[in-house]
This record gives sequence, C-alpha cells and structure tokens, in this order.
Amino acid sequence: VAELPAFSSRAEAAEADRLDPLARYRDEFLSREGGPVYLDGNSLGRQPRATAGAVSGLLDEWARDLVAGWERWVELPGAVGDRVGRLLGAAPGQVVVSDSTTVNLYKLAVAAVDARADRPVIVGDANDFPTVRYVLQGIAAAHGRRLRLIDSGPAEGAEAAAIAGAVADDVGLVCLSGVNYRSGAVADVPAVSALAHDAGALTLWDLSHAAGAVPVQLDASGADLAVGCGYKYLNGGPGAPSWLYVRAAMQASLRQPIWGWWGQQDQFAMGGAYDPVPGVGRFLAGTPAVAGIVALDAGISPLLSAGMPAVWAKTRRLVGLLAGRAEELLTPLGARSASPSDPARRGGHFSISHPHAWAATRALIDRGLVVADFRAPDVMRLAPVALYTSYVEAWDAIDRIASVLADPSVGAFVAKRRVT
Amino acid sequence: VAELPAFSSRAEAAEADRLDPLARYRDEFLSREGGPVYLDGNSLGRQPRATAGAVSGLLDEWARDLVAGWERWVELPGAVGDRVGRLLGAAPGQVVVSDSTTVNLYKLAVAAVDARADRPVIVGDANDFPTVRYVLQGIAAAHGRRLRLIDSGPAEGAEAAAIAGAVADDVGLVCLSGVNYRSGAVADVPAVSALAHDAGALTLWDLSHAAGAVPVQLDASGADLAVGCGYKYLNGGPGAPSWLYVRAAMQASLRQPIWGWWGQQDQFAMGGAYDPVPGVGRFLAGTPAVAGIVALDAGISPLLSAGMPAVWAKTRRLVGLLAGRAEELLTPLGARSASPSDPARRGGHFSISHPHAWAATRALIDRGLVVADFRAPDVMRLAPVALYTSYVEAWDAIDRIASVLADPSVGAFVAKRRVT
Repeated sequence: VAELPAFSSRAEAAEADRLDPLARYRDEFLSREGGPVYLDGNSLGRQPRATAGAVSGLLDEWARDLVAGWERWVELPGAVGDRVGRLLGAAPGQVVVSDSTTVNLYKLAVAAVDARADRPVIVGDANDFPTVRYVLQGIAAAHGRRLRLIDSGPAEGAEAAAIAGAVADDVGLVCLSGVNYRSGAVADVPAVSALAHDAGALTLWDLSHAAGAVPVQLDASGADLAVGCGYKYLNGGPGAPSWLYVRAAMQASLRQPIWGWWGQQDQFAMGGAYDPVPGVGRFLAGTPAVAGIVALDAGISPLLSAGMPAVWAKTRRLVGLLAGRAEELLTPLGARSASPSDPARRGGHFSISHPHAWAATRALIDRGLVVADFRAPDVMRLAPVALYTSYVEAWDAIDRIASVLADPSVGAFVAKRRVT
Repeated sequence: VAELPAFSSRAEAAEADRLDPLARYRDEFLSREGGPVYLDGNSLGRQPRATAGAVSGLLDEWARDLVAGWERWVELPGAVGDRVGRLLGAAPGQVVVSDSTTVNLYKLAVAAVDARADRPVIVGDANDFPTVRYVLQGIAAAHGRRLRLIDSGPAEGAEAAAIAGAVADDVGLVCLSGVNYRSGAVADVPAVSALAHDAGALTLWDLSHAAGAVPVQLDASGADLAVGCGYKYLNGGPGAPSWLYVRAAMQASLRQPIWGWWGQQDQFAMGGAYDPVPGVGRFLAGTPAVAGIVALDAGISPLLSAGMPAVWAKTRRLVGLLAGRAEELLTPLGARSASPSDPARRGGHFSISHPHAWAATRALIDRGLVVADFRAPDVMRLAPVALYTSYVEAWDAIDRIASVLADPSVGAFVAKRRVT
C-alpha cells in the first residue's frame, strides 16, 4: 500500500471535501450544525436519516399485522445477515444477525473448541477488547482449555510473526481481532488463517472495529468464523444486534452450545429433540430483536450504496490526515502515536497517548470541540467515519486537540474516569 | 380459589365491560376498529400507544447525545429490570433485562448446574416449551448431566405430586414453566420450590406465559432463578429483550458461563481478568439492546399502572368465560378442553383440541374473525389479555369459532402448517 500524499493546508482539505465522491452521504446521517467534530463513530455510529422511518415502519407492521408479522420478520436474521455479508465479502447463507457480540463470540468459540476437542490451547491476544478476553477466559475455565496470549504490543496488532510462535499442534482455536480496538492495528487475516490452518486450528475473528471501515473479504481470507458489532461503523444504534459468520463448508459440522428453538429444524413443529438446521441458522438461539435488526439494516444501507472500496479509500486518507497532523501538532505537546508506525497497518481509527488524555478528552467534549474516546490509562482514540466525517473536520479536530493539550488548566484537571 | 359465576348472556358480558375497572386501558393499545378478536397476546402482545413515542425519544437521544447517551442507557437493564420485578413480586436489584429468553435460560441453568456440580440430574418437563427442553438437552450433553423429564400430561402442568417422584438427592436443578405454554396450566411455584430445596436442588422457572398475566410473587415463592419473555403479556414488541431474576442471596455465589464486559466490575477500566460485579449485573453479558428495553418499558407501564391483582381478577373471569362457553358450544362440535379441568389451575389462556384445529385457526384468521394460535398437532390456544380484551370479545370469539368448526369446508381444508 503506497503512502498517501499528506494534506498541507486546510484549503487542501476543503478541496478534498469538494471532490469527495462520498460527500453526499454526509446528509444521510443526522448531525447538528456547528456541533463538535464527532470522532467516536467506532463506539456508536451516527444515526442514519432513514432509521426513524424504518423503525416506524416496523411499529406499523406490529400494530397492523400483530403475530402474522412473523411471516416476514422470521426471515430478517438471514436476510439482513446476507446484506452484512455483502459488506464483508461473504456469499449469502453464511451470516446471521442476532444476539450481542459477546453472545455470538461465545457461541462460535465454544463450537470451535468442541470441534477440536483434543487440542487444549486457545490462542488469544492480551491486548484484545475486554469482552473477547473474558469470553475466552470463561470458556477456558469451563472446558478445561489453556489460554495462550500473544502480546503484540499496545500500538501494534495481531501480527503473523507473533502468532507463528504461539500456534502449534496443541492449538484448537485462534481468536483475534481484525482491527485492534485501541491502536487500530489491522491484522493480516489471510496470513494468520493460513498459519492456524497449517497447525490444524480454527480461526475466529472479532471484526467489530473492522466491518464497515476497512476492507474485509471473509470468503477469500480463509477465516472460519467471525463476529462483529452492529452499533459502530454499521450504524445500528445503541445495543444493535451483532452479526456472526460461519464459513458454509463448516456449518454442518459445528454445533453451538445454546440450543434454542430458533436453530431448530421445522421450528414450529416444536419437536422433542433438538435437531438444528444444517445452515448458518443453527447459530441462532432465541427470538431475534426485530426492531434492532430493522435499524441495523437501515444502518448498513449507506455503506452498501457507497461500496467498501470507496469507504476504505476515504478512511485511509482521513486517518492519514489525522496521523500526519498529530505528528506535527500534538507530538510537541507530549503526545505520541498509539497506532502502528506503518501506515499500511492502520485501520479506521488513529490513537494517541498522552498523560492528560482523560482530562483532554473530557475538556474537548465539555467545550463542544471534538467527541473523541478515552481508553484507560492514557489513550485517546480518533475515529473519522468516511460516510460522515469531512477532511476539514479531521483537520480542525487536531487543531482543537492541540489547543486543549496546550491549555495548562486541562493538565491540572483531576482525573476521574468518564463512563462510556 | 372459588369458581367464578358464569356469564349467561352477551348482555351480561357487555354489562361486565361497562363495569370493568380496566376498561380504560383498552385505549392505551393500538387496535383496528372492527378487526378480529385478538386472542394471541401470549404470542405477541398488542402495541401500547406510548411505544412509538418512547422509541422515537430514544432515537432523538441517540441523534443528539451520540455516545454520551450511554451515561443514561447504561442504567436501563437494571432500572427496567426493577420495574419488571415490581410486576413479579421481586424487590429491586434482582432482575435485569437483556438478551433473549433462550440465552437467559442458558446462562442461569448453567450457573445452577455448576453450583451443584456433584449432582448429575436436571429435572424438566417433557411438555415444556421447546426452547426450554432444547437448552436443557444441550446443557446436559455438554456438562455430563442427565435429564429426568416429568410427564405431567398435555392438559395439566408441573404438579408438585409429579415432581415429588422425580426430585431426589441426585438432582441439582429443577427447571419448569410457571404456566404451560400449551395448556395454560399453572405450576405451584412455592410447593415445587420447597420440594426442590428439601432435596438440595435449585429451581429455575420460565415465566414467559405467567409474567403479566397471572400472579407471581418471586421473592415469596422460594424460587431461586427465573426468566421470562418480553413480547408476550409484557407488550415489548417482536423480539423484545427478556428478563432474568436471581434471588439476591444467591447472586454472589453463582457464575454464568458467558463472561462478558457488561458483567465486569468497573467495566470501562477494561481490566485484565474477568471479575464480575457482585450483584445481578453479573448475569449480563454483552451490550444490551437499548431500543428494545425502552419499548419493553413502555410495554409494562400499563400493567404497573393497573396492578397485577386487577389484571388477574379480569384474566380469570375472561378465561372462565371462554372455558364455559367452549364447553357449551365447542364440545358438541368435537372440541375438548386442552387446559386443566380444575379452574383454579388455569392461567392466562385456555386451549382446546380438535382434529381440525389447524384449518379452523387458519379460517378464523382468513375470515377476519379471531386471531387464535395453533400448536401442533391439534391445539388452538385462546389468550384473552385483561388490559385490552373485552368480555364481549371473548363471548363473540366462541360464537365465531363455533361457526367455523361447524363449517364443513373447514374440515375439508388441506392441512398445511402455518408459520407463527
């Protein structure tokens, strides 16, 4: 991946906005004129303008059709799953939408561990998102497995080199993130998957910080299993349902631990013994959150319309702009990059570390300048979102962060963790 | 429980409607004038008039507050859980709302089985709702337990007498439903809980068909654990999140299998090792479906306002009316009761069996007469809902069912299972 040319002036950023082929999508999301620069779409994506109508349409269906609405709603986990799959390079019939990311991760990790019953080790990343680590800890404790954690360094990611040392023939499952939630480091999914497969292990990817931001080609990557969040770059709203992917060839041979009626053959016959459908539907458990799926569908529509290549092209330029200006303006103020030094390994967000990161993040919000995201102990994450963040916003955000980091009152602010 | 006086005429039913202290709640739910009698609120409750505003308010919060909305939303699983608890006789701090009923059942059943590690048997009911049976089958298979299924008879319920024979000192968990989903039979929760406790077992109750319809006093009942559905009598809409109850005294000693960041102490510190909060929050896993919880909150508000004693008083009269008229009009047409013969053991719905039940249910819907619910092979469930079903509607419903059962074309209808 070639390094992109840096922006050298605000006028140049404004010109990039003028030429931006994605500019028209900005108006498809709700935002307040003159509000802060929103760089937290990787925590909670903005609300698409179409969401209210989609949800209202569902409420109308519920009011009008009552229980008969299920004749249509029953298809939603698979239908919207297939649309998520289009974003992720997954052919139809491999993705369903339901449950939370944590629950989906649990279901797939247990399925994988059970499928490799003779292999006592699960490989994970000590720097991974908490819920991934906790789910694996719980499974290891309950299933008599050992966790072998790679430590890829807080500013890097799950590199093939680090993993090569950890993956041996005692490993049943390699569970990593496609984009690290702190640093934004991108994993080499095909290389890691190949390594894991050579050793006889399965791979499970948490793509919460990847899906909708960076290119993902699930079918081509060799990934066996994946899950991801619906409320970050997929814009599904707070607590949106998660999606899960199981490669078609593996579906019939894997069995998840939560045996529920939504995974059952001929579900409404309510037969005696659990006998799951052969396809990806066997990874459903209970009744899916219909309103959440409808909102998620509205959330991914602009991404499907824009296409991931265009989204990624702009994301890279935005992240490059942030990284370049941060180097220029924030490094002299005591910040350092908390993202990969190699631009080719950066995903959809850029992070800095600074001793006053918490107070600065708080001050930026309180002063209505920038909504960034703090991660303990000292990281500020900056996530521009291609569909609704402009180059000028990204440019201005660094100026504003610099003004706050340079403000002596911010450094004196007593640190008290904010809840997000 | 004294038998209620039967209704002897439609005029008497109309008079009961005129005097009904709950009549005003009817207008708090959306319905179509002249539509069919809706007797399927135990599959999907009607939509409260307030739901659209509540959901729209959440969308406004999302649009306006973005990620800062979490400062409020983070409290919702517990706050709405406490309100559900008020309906169920549970003091605050014992109920949370999140995930599906299937997932919650799984979490609590595994927690209970793990807490009784030396006891190899789980007692369940062969006539229970499929997802309950499947979840227990999966746990038994994965955890090396045996299922001991009582067979309480399709028209009866989980009776203390039947259970006494099954519960011995090899039993770790007794998992039953408070109201049977087919017959509407009510279990004696205090008696069964006492039996189980005498044997050293824990109890887990699926109250999906009980909560919001029949009286439930969780704290007083001796139940250890319970779960229930949000989209039946609690009116939360299709796929509404479920609730779970864990008796306060047991919370710290139970650990659920899905170790997620929403159960973690000091969640946003994102610490290294899973260390769950001491309270009921440890039974959360991933990010809860905020829109679903908000809609559920709107769904239970009319129940909290009306109060469960008034709801139950009317439910009993409605079910009694259906049972009495079914005996009079439907028995001569080949139907028989599929609900307990003892009125005191009937819950919130009344079921009949008839060889043409499927075709009749379909014809009642197609002709816009009654929305009832078919359960294979031959059961038609009739669920009047105290807050929005009138006595006259219940009266008329039996006339309409009789007209359809008497129609020779319905009997000739080729049975093809309907999807609901």
